[in-house]
Amino acid sequence: MAGLIDQKLTALGLSLPTPAAPIANYVGYVVTPGFVTLSGQLPVVDGTVAIVGTLGDTLTVEEGQRAARICFLNVLAQLKAACAGDLDRVTRIVHLRGFVASTPSFAQHALVMNGASDLAVAVFGEAGRHARSTVGVVSLPAGAAVEVEAVAQIA
Amino acid sequence: MAGLIDQKLTALGLSLPTPAAPIANYVGYVVTPGFVTLSGQLPVVDGTVAIVGTLGDTLTVEEGQRAARICFLNVLAQLKAACAGDLDRVTRIVHLRGFVASTPSFAQHALVMNGASDLAVAVFGEAGRHARSTVGVVSLPAGAAVEVEAVAQIA
Amino acid sequence: MAGLIDQKLTALGLSLPTPAAPIANYVGYVVTPGFVTLSGQLPVVDGTVAIVGTLGDTLTVEEGQRAARICFLNVLAQLKAACAGDLDRVTRIVHLRGFVASTPSFAQHALVMNGASDLAVAVFGEAGRHARSTVGVVSLPAGAAVEVEAVAQIA
Repeated sequence: MAGLIDQKLTALGLSLPTPAAPIANYVGYVVTPGFVTLSGQLPVVDGTVAIVGTLGDTLTVEEGQRAARICFLNVLAQLKAACAGDLDRVTRIVHLRGFVASTPSFAQHALVMNGASDLAVAVFGEAGRHARSTVGVVSLPAGAAVEVEAVAQIA
Repeated sequence: MAGLIDQKLTALGLSLPTPAAPIANYVGYVVTPGFVTLSGQLPVVDGTVAIVGTLGDTLTVEEGQRAARICFLNVLAQLKAACAGDLDRVTRIVHLRGFVASTPSFAQHALVMNGASDLAVAVFGEAGRHARSTVGVVSLPAGAAVEVEAVAQIA
Repeated sequence: MAGLIDQKLTALGLSLPTPAAPIANYVGYVVTPGFVTLSGQLPVVDGTVAIVGTLGDTLTVEEGQRAARICFLNVLAQLKAACAGDLDRVTRIVHLRGFVASTPSFAQHALVMNGASDLAVAVFGEAGRHARSTVGVVSLPAGAAVEVEAVAQIA
């Protein structure tokens, strides 16, 4: 039977991507007692970075938000793998860190990162309310628009 | 009766800002067993980012240090809220991460971040001596000069 | 008698640098129960940042990889100090975060960071397989090409 969070995802019309396989000497997540530390997730769809570019230049805030949202879907996919398929074991999203590819004059990083934060709360409710940091970086791997890191507490 | 750290703050002539209210689907801090993870803090005074600009361009190192110091005051405010008002429960500042809005040729990020580190040690003494990372970012939310993240151990 | 990891380092022809002394009000690492949180490490050799410059401009990917590798040697040096000299106490490299000084159009940050990740796995084997985040920053302290942060689990 689908878990509560899986049902929530279905109700939201979301399906999770396949968690990206390790492409080098690192892994998608590490589990320590009570916590999962996730690798930075890019806005990958079907194995390709779907939203490339720079906020303040080639991308609108709305496109950045969509990128952040896709990053968080990939966070969810990794988290589900870390929990052996059972997202109901997630008791808290502790922290999200958003790296937004930006120009020097861009200032709306917080709006961009809401694409991830809003999805976290839509999926997990109060347990999805996280500490957050958002900064503007000069470039990201493969030209990605956004990269999102996460730490989650699990039961 | 004021706690020891509150007395120290008073002796240093410091008063803490009101911790910023959540402005989106995230929170100022998350408490997990024994630790507080704080959201990235901007140099906010009276609800407004007080020091905007870029190190190496529109801001001097001294202005950057002042921004980092204000960020840490906001860290303290969040930390006090996380400890239900009792900063004496902080047993260690584990890590500070400083994001400094910089030009490509700026190289004095460490001096800027000392504005936060020096205040951490002035307030907490040995317990304030933290691991630290400092990097130069292309831009920050609302044009802020500095953003400081923190993890603290609490009793 | 040399520990297993020390023997591995010798077999790889590696000798660790002296861990950098604190140069301000912060420390190289903080130990909490079961974990070590390390300060960001620069590509320091004999007390000086050995590889300065920007990926996509003055440095090749190979030079960036070498910088990341040197950063990780400094991570190892700090980690050894944190473990009172016994690297065999490291049970897992939990997370590495790579900040790569980059131009806006640089996109090969992941290749650069492999310089650190590959060394982590060469030294620790499966315990060296870590979660990872890699981003491009506009500049780093002292003009460094790369900065690497780490969290390790210890026994």
